[in-house]
This record gives sequence, C-alpha cells and structure tokens, in this order.
Amino acid sequence: MNINRMMSLAALVKARDAGKATPELMVALCRDAIGRKDPRIKAFAHRDLDATIRTEGPLAGIAIGIKDIFDTFDQPTSYGSPAYRDHRPRVDAAIVDLARRQGATIIGKTVTTELAFIHPAETVNPHNHAHTPGGSSSGSAAAVAAGMIPAAIGTQTGGSVIRPAAFCGVAGFKPSFRLLPTSGMKHFAPSLDTAGLFAAGIEDVAVLTALLTGRDLAPRPDEPPLDPSTIRVALYRCAQLADADPDMRQALAKAADLAADAGFDVGEIGEPEALAVAREAHLVIQDHEAGLACGPDLARSRDALSPVLIETLERGQAITPSQYDEARKHAKRGRSAARALFGEVDILLTPSAPGAAPRGLTTTGDPRFNRLWTLLGTPAINIPGLADEAGLPLGIQAVARFGRDQALLTAAARLEAAFRG
Amino acid sequence: MNINRMMSLAALVKARDAGKATPELMVALCRDAIGRKDPRIKAFAHRDLDATIRTEGPLAGIAIGIKDIFDTFDQPTSYGSPAYRDHRPRVDAAIVDLARRQGATIIGKTVTTELAFIHPAETVNPHNHAHTPGGSSSGSAAAVAAGMIPAAIGTQTGGSVIRPAAFCGVAGFKPSFRLLPTSGMKHFAPSLDTAGLFAAGIEDVAVLTALLTGRDLAPRPDEPPLDPSTIRVALYRCAQLADADPDMRQALAKAADLAADAGFDVGEIGEPEALAVAREAHLVIQDHEAGLACGPDLARSRDALSPVLIETLERGQAITPSQYDEARKHAKRGRSAARALFGEVDILLTPSAPGAAPRGLTTTGDPRFNRLWTLLGTPAINIPGLADEAGLPLGIQAVARFGRDQALLTAAARLEAAFRG
Repeated sequence: MNINRMMSLAALVKARDAGKATPELMVALCRDAIGRKDPRIKAFAHRDLDATIRTEGPLAGIAIGIKDIFDTFDQPTSYGSPAYRDHRPRVDAAIVDLARRQGATIIGKTVTTELAFIHPAETVNPHNHAHTPGGSSSGSAAAVAAGMIPAAIGTQTGGSVIRPAAFCGVAGFKPSFRLLPTSGMKHFAPSLDTAGLFAAGIEDVAVLTALLTGRDLAPRPDEPPLDPSTIRVALYRCAQLADADPDMRQALAKAADLAADAGFDVGEIGEPEALAVAREAHLVIQDHEAGLACGPDLARSRDALSPVLIETLERGQAITPSQYDEARKHAKRGRSAARALFGEVDILLTPSAPGAAPRGLTTTGDPRFNRLWTLLGTPAINIPGLADEAGLPLGIQAVARFGRDQALLTAAARLEAAFRG
Repeated sequence: MNINRMMSLAALVKARDAGKATPELMVALCRDAIGRKDPRIKAFAHRDLDATIRTEGPLAGIAIGIKDIFDTFDQPTSYGSPAYRDHRPRVDAAIVDLARRQGATIIGKTVTTELAFIHPAETVNPHNHAHTPGGSSSGSAAAVAAGMIPAAIGTQTGGSVIRPAAFCGVAGFKPSFRLLPTSGMKHFAPSLDTAGLFAAGIEDVAVLTALLTGRDLAPRPDEPPLDPSTIRVALYRCAQLADADPDMRQALAKAADLAADAGFDVGEIGEPEALAVAREAHLVIQDHEAGLACGPDLARSRDALSPVLIETLERGQAITPSQYDEARKHAKRGRSAARALFGEVDILLTPSAPGAAPRGLTTTGDPRFNRLWTLLGTPAINIPGLADEAGLPLGIQAVARFGRDQALLTAAARLEAAFRG
C-alpha cells in the first residue's frame, strides 16, 4: 500500500530559514494532513488544531505530536488508560516545555498503549491498516509515517521507540539515558524509562535532538569529511537472531553488505555472556519498578486496567528486593561489558524487531532486540530504508556506546543513505 | 525549651504486636497530639484526622506524615507553592501507596518549602520556636520532633532530610539512591532527588525502612553480636569543617571520643581531591536539572514563584550541555573515589550542618555538609543525641558506601546510644 510522502523536519527548517515557508504555513500543512488522514490512522488521542503557532525559536513552525504519556497543561492527558479519562495536568512535562521554549507547536497528543505497556490501542500501521504500528509509542510513529507531522516524541522502557519506528518505516531515536528529560511523564519503570524522538529520516531526528537539547548532535558528514573506513560496524551475533524472521535475517545481511559497499569497516561480533545475562535482568527490573510506580493505579483503578497489566503489576510487587538487587548487579556488569565491547567496535547492527509489523492489532510486537539497550542506557536508533516483498518496512537498529550519540547519528545517516540506495 | 517526648515507632510496633495497643489507639494518640501541638508548630500543610485506620499490615496503627511534595489521592497536594493551591492528584505517589499497602495511616501532608527548594515555609523548630526547623522537609522533621507522629517521609536533593533532622533532633535517613521510590513526587533534580525517612531514633527509622521495603535492614546488634572494634569510623576532614560553628566542631570531636569509648575503631581521613571537585558539581547538576524539571512551572506560574526560585531556574536554564556533562563527569569520578575511600573506612562522621538551627525563619540553613552524599547516592543518616548549651540539637552525620544501608543503620544505632549517654 502506498502512503503519502513523509514530512522532513530538516527540509522544513531549511525552507523556513530561507524564507520559503512561514511557521503558519508549515503548521497549516500538518493540520490539513491530520484532518485528512487521521480518521483512518487513528494516531492522535487528542488534536489541538488551534494550537499556538510561535514565530520565534529554532522549532518555529514545527508541529510536534506528544505521546499521551507526557503531561500537557492545555490538552487532556490520559496515559492510554480509561482511569485517566479527562485528566488535565497543571503543567507540561519537561520535554513538552522544552519543545515549546524552542518554538515548536504542540499539535496534539499521540496514542500510547495503556500506561505505555503492551495492551494495544486503536492506531493502525500506515503501510497496511491491517497491521500493528507497534507500541507503546504507536501514535507517534504512525503520525510521522503517515506524513501528518514532521516529528513526535515518545518513550521506551522495553522497545517502545525502536520497534514502532521500525514497523512504520521512520527514524526512531532512543538517546543515551537522561539526554532528554522525563519529568512529567507517567513513569512505568523509572530507571529504564527513556524519552525518544520520531521523524522521517535520520537527519530529521538528529536536527530535532540538537534543537531540543542545544547539543552539537546534527550529523555533519562533511566537516571533517566522514571516512566510513575508520568506523567499525559489527553485526551483533546475539542468540535472538535465531528468532528473527527469514526476511529480517536477509535484511540484516543486506544491511551489512550495503554498509561495506558504502565503505564502512564491517565485521561481526558475538554477544558477551554478561550481556546475555543482563538482557534477562531487564524484565525483573522493569516489573519490580512498575509494581512500585504503578502500584497506586492498581490500588485505585484496578477495574479500569487490562488483565495483562494487572498481572504484570502483581508479579512485579511479588519480586523480592534481593531478586531486584541481583538483577541490578547483572545490569551493572552488563554496562561494564558494553564498555569493553565498544572498545572493539563503534556501531553494532541488529534487527530492530524480529520482522516486519505483525498482522492484526492484538499485539504490538516483540521487544526482544531492544530491551538490552534500554537497560544499558546506550543510544540506539532505527534506520529505515529496507522493506519486505509486501512493502512493509524492515528496521535495522544501530547501537553505540553510552554518550556517543553524535557518532551514532552521523553513522546512521550514512547507513540510511546506503539502505535507501 | 522542653518539648514533649517523641513517639518511638519501634516501641509502638512492639506494643501493638504484644496486644498492648490497638491501631485505633495508636492513631488516636497522634490525632490528639496534632490537635494540641500543631497550631504552634505548623508542621502540617493538611491534616486528615479521619484517615482510614488499617488493622492489617506491619505498619497498622502507624500514623505517617507525608511531605507535601508527594502526591496523595485523598488529600490536597500543593508542593509548598501557591501555584498548586487546591491541586488534587489522581493517584498516590509510589511511596505513599507502599506505606498504605503496609498498613500505615496517612495522617496528613507535612509542610515543604516551595517546590522543595529553599524559600522557607511557616513551620517552627519545636526546640525553640524562634528558630528554623530546617528545610526542605521542614514539617516532616518538626512533626516527629514535637511528638505528633512516630514517622514522616521527606526528600533530599541537597540536604533536605539530614539538615532538618539535625536541627530538630530526630533521626533522618537518606538511603542509597533508589532504595525508596520517587515516582509521584514533584521532581526538582531527578538524578539527585532521594526519598528519605524521619523518626524519633535510629532504630525507629531502621524499622520503618525495613517494613516499607521488605529489606533486611533493621539493626540486629546481637545476632551476630556487633563488635564495634571491627568497624572503622573516621572523622571526615573536608575543607568545610572550617566553616562549622565552634559548638559543632566541639560536638564532632566529642562524637569521635564517644565512638572510641563505645569501642569503635576511630580515626580520621582526609577528603580525596575528586570528592572536593564532585561537591562543586552538585550545584551545576541540580540547577540544570531544575531548569528542565521546573521549567514548566516557570513558564506557567512565574508570578506565583519566589524570586530565589525564579533566579535559580533561569540560571539552570542557562547552564550549557557541556557544563552539565562536565559536572556529571566529576560526579562519576567522585563515585569512583568514594568506592576507594570506603575500602579504607566503613563509616564517615561529619557535621549534619554547620551548627544548630539558625535563629529566624528566613533561611532553612546550609546544605554544605550534605550535597556531596546526595550527589554520590551513598546512604547518610543524622544521628541525634548531642546539643549545644542552649539545648538546641547538634546533629552528627554518618555516611557509608553505596548499598551498605544496613551496616550504616546498625553502626548508627550504636553511636546514637553512645551520644545519648
């Protein structure tokens, strides 16, 4: 199925700076696209089509969708749960305020699964409406993919940025832990909850990250010229590769070939035992912290929660402190092993998900390729560009060392160009 | 000035378990004390004198005051700011829910300074009403000190648990970072914000921590018998000691003597350079994160904020990412230096504050002896028992290695006994 062309944030900013587009026009384009497309895609939980358009600031004219797990003072915030119907927070989440301070227009709240966990919502995949867009940042990924908005904000606790970005064929960036603030989000597992960004392509997501944070993160392949042969890219041979679909295994091999053709120093590397162990620790940490952070919801609103969430929170509350401490020890050892691993390679390539978006809306897909990097806090990005025979996107995930966000974005932009051919 | 005897949580729990006191009676005692004393002390921002009394759970009958920086679904939550007047959160903060699940009665919200920063509130010091109780957990410390409740919950971002505990002469415990959940608190600087506990004495605060977390943290000096001569206690010779009042310097020397008399292996240790540098990094990290986390308040409610808060948030927003990153680097080096330091000693002793509670309510005192340990995430505790000639408490702070909460509590209980003589 054909979807309309996506909106490039970088191109919009350039057009605005060149005087070829006004902020008003840029936002009007989004309003129009949302009006036409969202009735079918259902990416928005709330639309603020009269949102203030700022004319000052580096994000002036950029309409951003905010995952409805973040508070907004001027729009209802329901965290994907009937327990929060008509909830109106007093102030914005920190990242929403940051976006407004940079001039962005908050055009609406994008659909999240229930409390950003796995119980699915109504959003469909713009590439094929019978398929899931992924979750939990379902609406953020779908709204960008459908060309309704140039950018959206999401969160990842397991695989909730990388996976929906992969399924929808957009760039999804989970920066290093704490690069973007999470105050004012509805937390699920605070030591894992990471804010992330969606945009059409890698350059777009990099420009957005740079403008939001004031960090020097925009890819600058030409100053100094990027020499791909100095960048060690490795296919990451974790055991989960055996669980990937044949299509995805083929896509990953193709990605490696294209990277080599583009001049990168491409090899393979096995998974250190400490990282295999750390991956298993993710669930213990997530569930224990969710049992605490969402314990108040279980106490107050049990009837409004899905069975899978209730079961998870109860399991989390039954995890003992010593089980949690052991998992944290494994996470700490994993971080140490990751530092050693990134002494040998610069960029790891893995699938973003086991395959393309599954058919049906009863599941949002499987985070098995994402959990480890969320736990370690390393930057990870979904590189779009490959697809299966039916035209559904197949996402390739690139991962770098903690704090090496710019190196990751620069390499990913070059890889994306290679994948798109 | 004489204040009434404090309520011991450990004694109440024992009496209840022995059938000598019912939960109803235990809470009624608190209701009565609050009714008599709070009009002068002003420790409560809201009292829920009809709060549900649970008869099941290890904290049944224990009335707890919650710093009004934590959300409560059944009581107004104003974060010490007129900007949040009449704010009613939908659900409890995680630690409030945890306390309820263990059977505690949430008897009221205790006064916090504005957004848990330094602009003072109306609470007075129970030992002398002309003096500050300290802040930002002003009401939590004062309510316990005045004998209104056996326990209260607070937070520390700079010195907001240890300092008010010291000024009010109660035990105040800032556990290792993340030992207690902070979801549902109004964050100021998320990587520093730490939940902490107040109770009459060290055993009380240890029992409370153990019952809230399910961790094996209650001091058990007799099984196996505590041999103080195996515990290396060191006076911590940081440069800030020169800023302490003569009374406090004398109290610290006395504390060391009493510890030696009690059989501890007492010595002195200098401050590693990396820790002196890390201390300075605290303010950069705090202010930068506050500029993000409370940026939405500045945007929405500037007129309702104090000048000192506005100035701090604006200064925080002007801190560049590279200044913040450098501060985080210093913090990381500090954590590493602290691990090495705690290879040489088990317990560090420092003043909890430069002296006794200052006269007047225009300042809540000085956190210079607290910031470093908040930044490092190490457990710290105020040991009460010493006082100046006017009878105002002089608090001694004990600090242990990250994760060594039980060792700290056990040693602190023995030190407290020595200080009280």
